[in-house]
Amino acid sequence: MPENHKITFRTEVREEDLEIVRSIVSSTGFFYDFEIPVAVELVEERLRLGPASDYYFIFAEVNDKTVAYTCFGPIAGTEGGFDLYWIATHNDFRGRGIGNLLIGETHKVIREMGGRLVIAETSTIEKYAPTRHFYYKLGYTLEAKIDDFYKEGDGKVFFIMRF
Amino acid sequence: MPENHKITFRTEVREEDLEIVRSIVSSTGFFYDFEIPVAVELVEERLRLGPASDYYFIFAEVNDKTVAYTCFGPIAGTEGGFDLYWIATHNDFRGRGIGNLLIGETHKVIREMGGRLVIAETSTIEKYAPTRHFYYKLGYTLEAKIDDFYKEGDGKVFFIMRF
Repeated sequence: MPENHKITFRTEVREEDLEIVRSIVSSTGFFYDFEIPVAVELVEERLRLGPASDYYFIFAEVNDKTVAYTCFGPIAGTEGGFDLYWIATHNDFRGRGIGNLLIGETHKVIREMGGRLVIAETSTIEKYAPTRHFYYKLGYTLEAKIDDFYKEGDGKVFFIMRF
Repeated sequence: MPENHKITFRTEVREEDLEIVRSIVSSTGFFYDFEIPVAVELVEERLRLGPASDYYFIFAEVNDKTVAYTCFGPIAGTEGGFDLYWIATHNDFRGRGIGNLLIGETHKVIREMGGRLVIAETSTIEKYAPTRHFYYKLGYTLEAKIDDFYKEGDGKVFFIMRF
């Protein structure tokens, strides 16, 4: 990324993030139609309940434009287990290493919150090969797999980062 | 079970099931204190939203007394994936095969609902050896494991039944 495109992070969640999240997630072409309202609902929950929602967000901004985000939170009933619910970069800003910086910031925050491990779930199908590659490169380990989880021929894998 | 102790099943969920579920789950000694309100909340959700809650229940009754139950439901974003959220038999009625009959009935209902697979999650610690044995005996397969999931030394296993 050019030096004049400085990336900053923001954890405060605002009303306009409802639309920002919808826009980022839609732009990727990676998610099913029914998944997009789910992403937006988590922002709603956070706006409604605050940290009690147990949904935390980090937004990555480039020149004051929000171009990527993570949504994560502690897993109920665990000591230090965290789920990475969403990570998405707007399609116009992919390939610039923003996702790497954002996940690094997310790990830092999770560790500060007492996190021991982070779980990122994704699909086994070919379409998600870049997603799986992304987690591997970051040092996540594919520790568990459930075949045909989503549907016949479409399994779920659990990538885990341990601190 | 003696022949005069006939077991019947009920899928209708009633107000009094809030207390019945609390009583059954508490009696087992198998769950942490914080888990008991979670079990009751699922009954509340079902009473409030009906089938739209996506929580389904089967209650096992012996001589009109409700002594065991399962709570299960479709996994959002899957085709035919079901989670078995809870299965519990009142401690006074354990060892009579009620759990076996109840899970058989639950599988039957899940298949009727289009279920392809059922996931039952439990812990790796010694305390849950009877639970794991129960699933093995029923024909579930331990397909995935996440070490130290709940806390250090306490992992999660995924038992899967496929139809």
